[in-house]
Amino acid sequence: MQRVLSSDISSYVGKNVVFLGWIHRIRKIGGIAFVILRDRAGLVQTVFETKELLLKLEDLKEESVVSVLGFVKKEERAPMGAEVRVFKIEVISRVKEDLPVVINKKELKVNIDTLLDYRTITLRNPKQRAIFKVQGEILKAFRAFFENQGFTEINTPKIVCAGAETGGAEMFSLKYFKKGLAYLAQSPQLYKQIMVGIFERVFETAYVYRAEPHATSRHINEYMSLDIEMGFINSWLDLIDMHQELTKYMIDWLKNNSKEDFELLGAKLPKYTKIPVMKLSEAQDILEKEYKIKCKGAPDLDPKQEKAICDYVAKKYDSEFVFITHYPTKKRPFYTYPDPKNPDETLSFDLLFRGLEVTTGSQRHHEYDKVVKAMKDKNIDTKGFEEYLSIFKYGMPPHGGFCQGLERLTARFLELENVREASLFPRDINRLKP
Amino acid sequence: MQRVLSSDISSYVGKNVVFLGWIHRIRKIGGIAFVILRDRAGLVQTVFETKELLLKLEDLKEESVVSVLGFVKKEERAPMGAEVRVFKIEVISRVKEDLPVVINKKELKVNIDTLLDYRTITLRNPKQRAIFKVQGEILKAFRAFFENQGFTEINTPKIVCAGAETGGAEMFSLKYFKKGLAYLAQSPQLYKQIMVGIFERVFETAYVYRAEPHATSRHINEYMSLDIEMGFINSWLDLIDMHQELTKYMIDWLKNNSKEDFELLGAKLPKYTKIPVMKLSEAQDILEKEYKIKCKGAPDLDPKQEKAICDYVAKKYDSEFVFITHYPTKKRPFYTYPDPKNPDETLSFDLLFRGLEVTTGSQRHHEYDKVVKAMKDKNIDTKGFEEYLSIFKYGMPPHGGFCQGLERLTARFLELENVREASLFPRDINRLKP
Repeated sequence: MQRVLSSDISSYVGKNVVFLGWIHRIRKIGGIAFVILRDRAGLVQTVFETKELLLKLEDLKEESVVSVLGFVKKEERAPMGAEVRVFKIEVISRVKEDLPVVINKKELKVNIDTLLDYRTITLRNPKQRAIFKVQGEILKAFRAFFENQGFTEINTPKIVCAGAETGGAEMFSLKYFKKGLAYLAQSPQLYKQIMVGIFERVFETAYVYRAEPHATSRHINEYMSLDIEMGFINSWLDLIDMHQELTKYMIDWLKNNSKEDFELLGAKLPKYTKIPVMKLSEAQDILEKEYKIKCKGAPDLDPKQEKAICDYVAKKYDSEFVFITHYPTKKRPFYTYPDPKNPDETLSFDLLFRGLEVTTGSQRHHEYDKVVKAMKDKNIDTKGFEEYLSIFKYGMPPHGGFCQGLERLTARFLELENVREASLFPRDINRLKP
Repeated sequence: MQRVLSSDISSYVGKNVVFLGWIHRIRKIGGIAFVILRDRAGLVQTVFETKELLLKLEDLKEESVVSVLGFVKKEERAPMGAEVRVFKIEVISRVKEDLPVVINKKELKVNIDTLLDYRTITLRNPKQRAIFKVQGEILKAFRAFFENQGFTEINTPKIVCAGAETGGAEMFSLKYFKKGLAYLAQSPQLYKQIMVGIFERVFETAYVYRAEPHATSRHINEYMSLDIEMGFINSWLDLIDMHQELTKYMIDWLKNNSKEDFELLGAKLPKYTKIPVMKLSEAQDILEKEYKIKCKGAPDLDPKQEKAICDYVAKKYDSEFVFITHYPTKKRPFYTYPDPKNPDETLSFDLLFRGLEVTTGSQRHHEYDKVVKAMKDKNIDTKGFEEYLSIFKYGMPPHGGFCQGLERLTARFLELENVREASLFPRDINRLKP
């Protein structure tokens, strides 16, 4: 007999089924036992009534893997609207030790360190699991959107040589055969620009690495960067437009594919409204005026300011997103295109979502002389950048792009406090395992 | 006026269009010039006829980025069945230097080192570009197949601590803050097994790293590993069945989505037949008998033997694929499940495709005592594996999986000689850039 998944159980009322899964919870009441089984699709309630079956349960610990044969009966109080009256149970994999953490309660009542120390087990909790189901859907939505827009998926190297972007600062280094030191890419920036010369429109979804010794709830040292880059833009506003559409598409996708996971997690999807766009200097004016936060002239918003401006935008425009634009040239990377109307500002933007930066992007330089000058202005040695710079000698269209952090995006969609909760096995300054 | 892509040009016969792209080739004949433009979708022929336009072409080098306004005329000899009679040309990005390599001929007549040294430019050649269009489709097909089968996409860390799999041999190492040495993952093996405990069925498409000092046409040191792992298998044959279906699906997908790229590259899709399955020892018997190659008792096939057995299978079974199974226990990794009928052999398999191994897989140990014993038998210290091993204490179903190398798979589908040709920016013992 073919196994039936928990999510399909209600279609089998009146029939015998085989159910494979983990013993999630055992509850004995009077002479019978209710055993909740868990499989990849969810939970199902099974009922053990005979003495022989109850005896078999005696020495079975939770998380044991079992095969259960039973009859499906309608039962409105059960999780799937039906339950399985068990005839037979076989143990596939027996648990002998008690679990180090309780994972079969609705809420995992553990602190972040315990959650992550016992990650191989705590992830079995249905709510924990739902986070990564949603993350998988975000990733799918991102790829599907850009595939529909004519973007080509690329895979660019993560082992790179010196000179990439920041010249090695805040990058992990490794010995690369006899070539000396190599670094782990902190972004696919230079490669995705190169690839605009080939495919015009490219995207990549891959890990990038930051050796920054942060210990905040917003940073991890290995994260999934969702990157795009597109050529033949008319202006940086094409990027904003593309991002508006992406956000709409992603919200719709999650509405259609992750409804149950959002419900399980008690999270609310943002509704899509056209995302307001404001200059950094405008945002700072608002923060000074409305929130009495002194910040005028600073090159960026700090976390508190990001939260405040999101609060303002939510009230004023009923949007949980806001684009902040025109960051100062002196603080943005060399490849960022300055605003022709005011070269001290760049045609750049961040997207804030529920108080946190989740995207950063800009138009880029596409002319050789200007890129080289921009590097000199920032005291970056062009040595090591020869191949990157060569593309601007051989014909590059106006282009730009952006990147989203998958873990941050997941955390904001699901209103998780710490970005680590949205990484299966996060890496930070103190954490290298599991 | 909205730009029109080269692939859509034939729908615009009799109309004016704007075309954006690179000047791929300029050919002057008599008093007119045929200018082939290139965009992300392909090539289009444009015709420059007036003196004024021809003058503008005078100082325009190939690869300059231009915008062209013209009238589309049916022309059967042109690449897309139509050509553009140009009214106006604007230069978006001017090329001043000659290219270091000629890229606008049908064949890039360069050796592999030149191809890769000038990768940022040589990739603009339409055939080079087609390789990575196909690669993108292989990746899409892989993900789509497993999504349809109820697999969840996962992202597992690539920075791992000592003890992972081979205990650091042939792994790149890096300094990780105050944690000492960390390593770059050579496979997501242990993590994907852990994730079977959460989602039953998982897949991951990500780079993995091998610090092996190879210099062959089959190896690169950073490659895209397409990994799956699935629980609740009845036997290792479930994995073979799943792979048969995957291969069929992938071939169909490429037939539907990459026909033009295969034609451009002069490559032939394999036809799908049920893939023959044979034990390593049977393959060795055949090699001895039919090819006079002494190899009986060796733990693996060498490249020459892989080619010979593929040759045999192609003739005998009309299949370009063959599964070789039951590799010896002493040569397979500790997590490989031994054959209960003969513990010296494992329930493992490789898939050979057109003479090259493209997949490796097996059933895995799922019982704590047996995994620990298997590690001891191979003299692997269990220290550092605590978290991995703990999953077997807390209920793991029978499971197994496999991984495919994306670059190898691409190279075999397209019959490329060197796996480097199927990596945008390959990393090998001698190559760390571009």
